[in-house]
Amino acid sequence: MKFPFTVNDAFWSRYQELVSDVVIPYQKQILADELPEVEKSHAIENFKIAAGESDGIFYGMVFQDSDVAKWIEAASYSLMLKPDEKLENELDELIETIGKAQLSDGYLNTYFTIKAPEHRWQNLREAHELYCAGHLMEAAVAHKKATGKDNFLKIMEKNAKHIADRFGKDKERGFPGHPEIELALTKMYDITGNKTYLDLASYFIDERGTAPDYFAEESSRIDWVVWGNYMNNPEYNQAHLPVREQTKAVGHSVRAVYLYTGMADVAAKTGDKSLADACEILWNNIVEKQMYVTGGIGSTHDGEAFTKDYDLPNDTAYAETCAAIGLIFFARKMLELNPNAEYANIMERALYNGVISGMSQDGKRFFYVNPLDVNPEYSGKIMGHRHVLPHRPTWYGCACCPPNVARLITSLGDYVWLKKDDIYYSNLFIGGTYQESDKNGLGIELQTAYPNDGDLKYIIHTSKMENLKLAVRIPDWSDGYEITVKGKTYKQPETLNGYLMIEDTFVEGDSIEVKFTMEVKKIYANVQVKEDAGQVAFQCGPFIYCLEGIDNQNDLLSLRVKADGNVTKSIKNDVILGEIPVLEIEGARLEKQKSLYNYKKPSMEPVILKAIPYYLWDNRGENQMKVWISEVM
Amino acid sequence: MKFPFTVNDAFWSRYQELVSDVVIPYQKQILADELPEVEKSHAIENFKIAAGESDGIFYGMVFQDSDVAKWIEAASYSLMLKPDEKLENELDELIETIGKAQLSDGYLNTYFTIKAPEHRWQNLREAHELYCAGHLMEAAVAHKKATGKDNFLKIMEKNAKHIADRFGKDKERGFPGHPEIELALTKMYDITGNKTYLDLASYFIDERGTAPDYFAEESSRIDWVVWGNYMNNPEYNQAHLPVREQTKAVGHSVRAVYLYTGMADVAAKTGDKSLADACEILWNNIVEKQMYVTGGIGSTHDGEAFTKDYDLPNDTAYAETCAAIGLIFFARKMLELNPNAEYANIMERALYNGVISGMSQDGKRFFYVNPLDVNPEYSGKIMGHRHVLPHRPTWYGCACCPPNVARLITSLGDYVWLKKDDIYYSNLFIGGTYQESDKNGLGIELQTAYPNDGDLKYIIHTSKMENLKLAVRIPDWSDGYEITVKGKTYKQPETLNGYLMIEDTFVEGDSIEVKFTMEVKKIYANVQVKEDAGQVAFQCGPFIYCLEGIDNQNDLLSLRVKADGNVTKSIKNDVILGEIPVLEIEGARLEKQKSLYNYKKPSMEPVILKAIPYYLWDNRGENQMKVWISEVM
Repeated sequence: MKFPFTVNDAFWSRYQELVSDVVIPYQKQILADELPEVEKSHAIENFKIAAGESDGIFYGMVFQDSDVAKWIEAASYSLMLKPDEKLENELDELIETIGKAQLSDGYLNTYFTIKAPEHRWQNLREAHELYCAGHLMEAAVAHKKATGKDNFLKIMEKNAKHIADRFGKDKERGFPGHPEIELALTKMYDITGNKTYLDLASYFIDERGTAPDYFAEESSRIDWVVWGNYMNNPEYNQAHLPVREQTKAVGHSVRAVYLYTGMADVAAKTGDKSLADACEILWNNIVEKQMYVTGGIGSTHDGEAFTKDYDLPNDTAYAETCAAIGLIFFARKMLELNPNAEYANIMERALYNGVISGMSQDGKRFFYVNPLDVNPEYSGKIMGHRHVLPHRPTWYGCACCPPNVARLITSLGDYVWLKKDDIYYSNLFIGGTYQESDKNGLGIELQTAYPNDGDLKYIIHTSKMENLKLAVRIPDWSDGYEITVKGKTYKQPETLNGYLMIEDTFVEGDSIEVKFTMEVKKIYANVQVKEDAGQVAFQCGPFIYCLEGIDNQNDLLSLRVKADGNVTKSIKNDVILGEIPVLEIEGARLEKQKSLYNYKKPSMEPVILKAIPYYLWDNRGENQMKVWISEVM
Repeated sequence: MKFPFTVNDAFWSRYQELVSDVVIPYQKQILADELPEVEKSHAIENFKIAAGESDGIFYGMVFQDSDVAKWIEAASYSLMLKPDEKLENELDELIETIGKAQLSDGYLNTYFTIKAPEHRWQNLREAHELYCAGHLMEAAVAHKKATGKDNFLKIMEKNAKHIADRFGKDKERGFPGHPEIELALTKMYDITGNKTYLDLASYFIDERGTAPDYFAEESSRIDWVVWGNYMNNPEYNQAHLPVREQTKAVGHSVRAVYLYTGMADVAAKTGDKSLADACEILWNNIVEKQMYVTGGIGSTHDGEAFTKDYDLPNDTAYAETCAAIGLIFFARKMLELNPNAEYANIMERALYNGVISGMSQDGKRFFYVNPLDVNPEYSGKIMGHRHVLPHRPTWYGCACCPPNVARLITSLGDYVWLKKDDIYYSNLFIGGTYQESDKNGLGIELQTAYPNDGDLKYIIHTSKMENLKLAVRIPDWSDGYEITVKGKTYKQPETLNGYLMIEDTFVEGDSIEVKFTMEVKKIYANVQVKEDAGQVAFQCGPFIYCLEGIDNQNDLLSLRVKADGNVTKSIKNDVILGEIPVLEIEGARLEKQKSLYNYKKPSMEPVILKAIPYYLWDNRGENQMKVWISEVM
């Protein structure tokens, strides 16, 4: 099976090819411990040991299995992009091992099978058993879609049955410390139609945060811990209140957005209005009060968590790659619930900035943490900054982010278009063709140089579509647009929930052209964000820009932006980065003063600041980087 | 005995009376556990237990004895300010207990005597034995000066002999993890003339940081720890290099400045040029690269330490009160080594800002940490901000700061004037009389309303002084001055090392008037201080100003300073604070925007910002506070 949308786009086709050709094989080598110079994974070996194919002891995090799951998921999506018999065989071989690692009762988790069988299901708060199961289910669904084969899905159906037999109303009580299985169970339901999975997802969601405190009860029962009482607070796990009463995004940010994604999906599938309302309130709290301009979320290292409204430090940011990815998952489900361009705007913001910043341009290095202000003098070194690495490592002991980027990029075809009721929503402006599977379904191609410009040309590839309702997202960064439909200017289109609504009858070859103005925009943060006070950031199209030391005489601290200065964008050829958009910003460089404090304002020399898209930083060596720049007269 | 300088000054007499009348009795009650609502001290009880006067177990920090020592020191200085028979008797009683707590070999430390006698002198890195001894020696010297009595000094001479017999060349090797005894031993030398003490101070200083690593050797010998390996790095203890090779202030900031004070004093007493040079290099590093504008030092909670040059975060500042006090000690010894107004300027900066901010106006609450940006929404609450309390507590489990403030304020008479060679240096502009003890010595009175204005009137109180050389510090915040000597304008005085040099023959009643212009100054931080980029602070005379929420509609985040706006200073009467100088600053309040990020610059309304001296903040309830404010057009 293929995705409904096939990417054919200068920007994203390169990324998908990079992931298929480089990242997936590279990550497989790491997971199989074939690259001795990289941080040890042992994740596949754990499965082999559990399967009886190898001897040894478990190594890695309690959730090490999920690295394999996310890789299988990414590899399956890659097969949907282009067939690869070798990869398909590799997957079958790995799935066979996973099958052998599964116990006869359906239980599947190498940490517990190898290392702590007596502690199965005792510590849902810490032990990630339901989390790993969720990732394996997602992988099995992707594998089934990609190959049509049932081998992995059967394993995970058996595992899901094991879990559903154990947990639920009138069964054992429980819900995961790290949400994930909720959104996975809805995918299992989508592909199998088995309502047990949807019901179990609903159960985990509904039970969460209800009294009595399940995690407290669990802790009092057991004397076995993974990390101990670290982070044993209900907010960390979003278990402080029943989910429908939660109004602020709190705690571990990845857990939060995975949970909200599952909630939104269950709400969409069940029509549960109160659950949908809770999702919207939580969404609004994130995007109106707790999100970096790059789409990053979770501003503190302390629990990888949300903190307080408007607390968005740039230099000690956490903004985990996985959290930005999770925000995209959440946005997609919110779109499905209730199409509104705002969700797609945020999806785009995270995708083009805080997600792809997580991977180097060669696909071999990854950021877990995505700061907006880096200075190698202290980033990664001093108190509060130790987590802010100034250079992408090859791998991590906790390696959740790298395969997460891979699975998102390979499955991008799922995020571009949405059909809801009888409207076709064009959410992401990615070149390629959306093709409905049924014979008379819509085929529509987007030709565009986006994100280099805002000119979109949609071409119909269906014999005839009467009253086609096309909704084109109005991007939040654009001040205006021109529309030409079948060669004629289309004046004053209706807009609905942030979309341009175009309705007409089309035949093969007809085109709809939408040209969004794409100017460089200065961004001002809400005054409540103290870390951005007096500063501006730059955006052009979907890209947030940043200054890097290498382009600015290795001294960003003395640079200022001129309040009424010009900014020009042009495509430049960088030796390493290739053709990239570059901003040239009128600014000033403050004089160097010897004293620490001066009663005289430092003088300024005019200078042109050079900014590149944020996602491209740290591809030319470790150096300073800054998104927000002080503005002066 | 009295101090050579008697304070008679509207600003400082109040402080000295507050400390004598309120703080010292209050702290005694706390140390004697008579105030159940306050954090438990047990410090005096520990001495009673060790003395056999009471039963019980040791309670408190390993350095709990030093709280008693600093209180005795402060109380002794208070006796020099005004006789108090009751206090003197209390001291004698306490000293008797301390004497009984001393072991026959001279050893004196209640933690080890009560709790861990078998671990005496095993862990110099952590156990603070030499630190506590140092504080007790300082107290004994102060007590001898104040009362002329030998009772405490004898105890501490016996203790010093015990230490000198144990440590030194050809004896046991060692030096303290927390410097303090060095500066105390030089005081013991000053008052006794016993060169053993100076030699021992020199030994501890010279041995520090030499190979092999003493603390590493010590750690390998013992399996007994206080906190364990936390902070077991040589830089934390300034033991990473021989002191003459140290060029940057590193590690725990109080340890650092106590060490440097001892070094400077030993250098002054021995004429050791290389040691004096090291002091100057370390001084310059602090004041040119690592000091808050308030005179606070040590920017991180992590080890209460210096971090990197120019790393001076305002909201996560540590800036321990004790460290600013230590900087004053260091400044004073640098002045004695080599009189230069720069040292006195910094002494003044710390004194009027980062030191007295450590105590509430009623003398009953104390800051350990002195931030420059506080928001009760997150200060004291979230990651990295938990140490930044938005309101002064009554006492601390680690209560080093409160008695440290008390002893500095009561001994202020030691910091105002300096005679070196035949020059009289007027370093701090505090009203009162400097009187040399010898019959023909100088008597000179300063009459001034300082710090409210910069007008100084010196009046001679000696029958005749020929060729009196008077050096008046030129304060760094003043742009100019007028001098009148004996009623005549004194044009173009010579300046030397930042002092106005006035030389003339004077008789009783002659006056020297110096009027320093005192305008409100805007301060700009060095561009390397990223936390202050685009922001200004305000100073008038010695005071750094701050905004408090209570004066500014409880919203400091939306306030901006107008770059070319007016600032006026006036004396206002505040219901709680009394008559205080207040700045009214032309500025703007940014409009509230709902969105987190905006492409439109927020509009501004003109508004007058109200600022008060920094040291006065948090005397009117917990609220926002900010020293650095963004400047706009």
